[in-house]
Amino acid sequence: MQNYSNPPIDQWESILKRPTVTFDDIESTVIEVFNAVNLTGDQALKNFTLQYDGVTINNLAVSSAEFNEAEALIDEGLKKAIDVAYDNIYKFHLAQQTSKVVVQTTKGVECWQEKRPIQKIGLYIPGGSAPLFSTILMLAIPAQIAGCQEIVLCTPPNKEAKVHPAVLYAAKRCGVQQLFKVGGIQAIAAMTYGTESISKVYKIFGPGNQFVTLAKQYATKLGVAIDMPAGPSELLIVGDHTAHPAFVASDLLSQAEHGPDSQVILVSTDKALLDAVESELKLQIKELPRKEIAKKAIANSKMIYFDSKEIAAQCIDQYGPEHYIICSEDEAFYIDHIHNAGSVFIGNYTPESAGDYASGTNHTLPTNGYTKQYSGVNLDSFLKQMTFQKITKEGIKNIGPAIQLMAHEEGLQAHKNAVSLRLKSIDK
Amino acid sequence: MQNYSNPPIDQWESILKRPTVTFDDIESTVIEVFNAVNLTGDQALKNFTLQYDGVTINNLAVSSAEFNEAEALIDEGLKKAIDVAYDNIYKFHLAQQTSKVVVQTTKGVECWQEKRPIQKIGLYIPGGSAPLFSTILMLAIPAQIAGCQEIVLCTPPNKEAKVHPAVLYAAKRCGVQQLFKVGGIQAIAAMTYGTESISKVYKIFGPGNQFVTLAKQYATKLGVAIDMPAGPSELLIVGDHTAHPAFVASDLLSQAEHGPDSQVILVSTDKALLDAVESELKLQIKELPRKEIAKKAIANSKMIYFDSKEIAAQCIDQYGPEHYIICSEDEAFYIDHIHNAGSVFIGNYTPESAGDYASGTNHTLPTNGYTKQYSGVNLDSFLKQMTFQKITKEGIKNIGPAIQLMAHEEGLQAHKNAVSLRLKSIDK
Repeated sequence: MQNYSNPPIDQWESILKRPTVTFDDIESTVIEVFNAVNLTGDQALKNFTLQYDGVTINNLAVSSAEFNEAEALIDEGLKKAIDVAYDNIYKFHLAQQTSKVVVQTTKGVECWQEKRPIQKIGLYIPGGSAPLFSTILMLAIPAQIAGCQEIVLCTPPNKEAKVHPAVLYAAKRCGVQQLFKVGGIQAIAAMTYGTESISKVYKIFGPGNQFVTLAKQYATKLGVAIDMPAGPSELLIVGDHTAHPAFVASDLLSQAEHGPDSQVILVSTDKALLDAVESELKLQIKELPRKEIAKKAIANSKMIYFDSKEIAAQCIDQYGPEHYIICSEDEAFYIDHIHNAGSVFIGNYTPESAGDYASGTNHTLPTNGYTKQYSGVNLDSFLKQMTFQKITKEGIKNIGPAIQLMAHEEGLQAHKNAVSLRLKSIDK
Repeated sequence: MQNYSNPPIDQWESILKRPTVTFDDIESTVIEVFNAVNLTGDQALKNFTLQYDGVTINNLAVSSAEFNEAEALIDEGLKKAIDVAYDNIYKFHLAQQTSKVVVQTTKGVECWQEKRPIQKIGLYIPGGSAPLFSTILMLAIPAQIAGCQEIVLCTPPNKEAKVHPAVLYAAKRCGVQQLFKVGGIQAIAAMTYGTESISKVYKIFGPGNQFVTLAKQYATKLGVAIDMPAGPSELLIVGDHTAHPAFVASDLLSQAEHGPDSQVILVSTDKALLDAVESELKLQIKELPRKEIAKKAIANSKMIYFDSKEIAAQCIDQYGPEHYIICSEDEAFYIDHIHNAGSVFIGNYTPESAGDYASGTNHTLPTNGYTKQYSGVNLDSFLKQMTFQKITKEGIKNIGPAIQLMAHEEGLQAHKNAVSLRLKSIDK
């Protein structure tokens, strides 16, 4: 890891610079795939699946026989593990429900706010070597709690034209019935336009590679919403002498194994911790199946020593990490001083992987500094807030004159007139 | 207005088609302005203000002398009107505060969710003939309640290099101190990149013309969030024999005066209402200063008769209006059957202009069908949700085995190892 000691504030930005991703060279591919899917629907999806995934797909939809087969293939231990995760995620997201907000703002003027579900949503789950069935739990559970009517899930098929059984099992466990064997740009295009098999949705959720990321961005131009802008995953740990070096190293590595562009940062007010973690990293990395990936990420990662916890906290908040682990005797201080983070893990026994799978919090989080303005996925991501107002004759008499004056000042006479007519009819 | 009677469902989409806006021809202008502002900051802002607004600006920031001068220019009646609106908007948005969500998902696993303010936000307020000071209330009041640290407001200067006093008064009333005389694309660019005078912000709010709309879209590519995608304003009224034709006509006109591309729709289960409203429109439109604009909008607007309220409600929900007025003896039915609307106005004494100014609800609402997936601006628009978790030794013993199994199945051994190390250390 690269080492820094008390870097001055004007260097923080360059030290903590995130990898920049440029998409310009694939934009034309995205547009081409979208146009084809818009034009020929399912046929285009099958063509692109053959072209990009090298697989011939006859039926895009996963059949109920395939769902059942998958269930039989999953061992009971994994089913129980998924149950544990399911229950915790369910509890935490259910608790996020809020009640209707009702306020009589002025006598005779009742206003209220209600949340209603987004009716049609799409989930994208990447395929490849690691079947991210945990992401299905993170997206489909809050969607179910929100009451979304229609949930469509797209995921690329493997070389045998199948979907990993854990993905099918998790989807079924979450009540997702519409699962389609299609990935990449074409999956996002299908959920944006709709095809013969796949419904057009209003909002698309889920992670993906740069093609999927750009396709989601493109979909927003066509009237679809997306969960959030995506970027490489990142972890920042702050530790002092109470942090456990082996645990810290294991957390850094669990971030590093995601990809060579993962961002891994350790901030400490204790120099000895930095040295101990460095040694632990060397030991632990050897054992990892994905050690080549992890080594690349670790080589780009940073260790930063600060004398002062105040300055450390300021630097961390400026970075705004997606995942933030606090292992410090001053944990309350660091909790109070973080305004920009996705999910925060507190104490030596709270690894990031707990939040990735089973503590109950969501693992779909803002990266790339987007913690400054975006929430991670939560129950509200699947709901919209609508407002209502009902005004009585007395109410319009109370606020009508203010509306008339303001509308007049803004030069909107018809707005004023809508009130004047009502006030006149009441005074008659 | 154009008339339809019981149109079949397959015609609804074309009848209710919104105007399509294409931006391709101005994208190069947007990019050019952004690049110049990025390169030369304030100087570029002054150059573009001279070029586009025809005004020479020496100091971009509004001075405290100018704020005071404005306050003296506003008459007491308007100040009181703004106070009425301020109080109602404040009450309604304050009531939207929620408390921390804390759940022990498993013994030893405590998860919580907290909302923290977006620290830096930017507000854009259009200039021109109608100074939209009401929009300042709608954006700055919830920003203050949320606790946003820094609020920057940009608005174009008039020909005398001044800002309309009502805009300055409303801004000061809401505690906005940083107000800059810059409009259009260059204002959005300034808040995106930051300049010598204007702070870079994390999220930009506010309405604007097609240049501002496209500039906001472009800003999202550069890491800034925006309130929502924009489109022409729209109103749908559903009425029956209990609706008051003159009131309905006045509401349709208050929408129509916004612009020739405003969408105005009247749905009714009572044919007599449609005829009566048509006559009222002809009478009322004559008196409007903006009648030429209103006439164009009304010529494109629709009246739709349905025999059945069930089918009427289905058609309305498919359209998903920004503003939705219900004047019907079956108001509860229509409230229950709307899933997609921005703000709903119920009863004969609840004109849309009440929500535009002073009932307390927000007037920054999704248009163009975006009610299907976006909320209107509300308190949460200025906050982010963050999650926290703290796990004890007992907690990680409870959920650790599930994490290990799931991480293993996803092929992420370092994720598993972060748990295994901790479990081993506990068992020692």
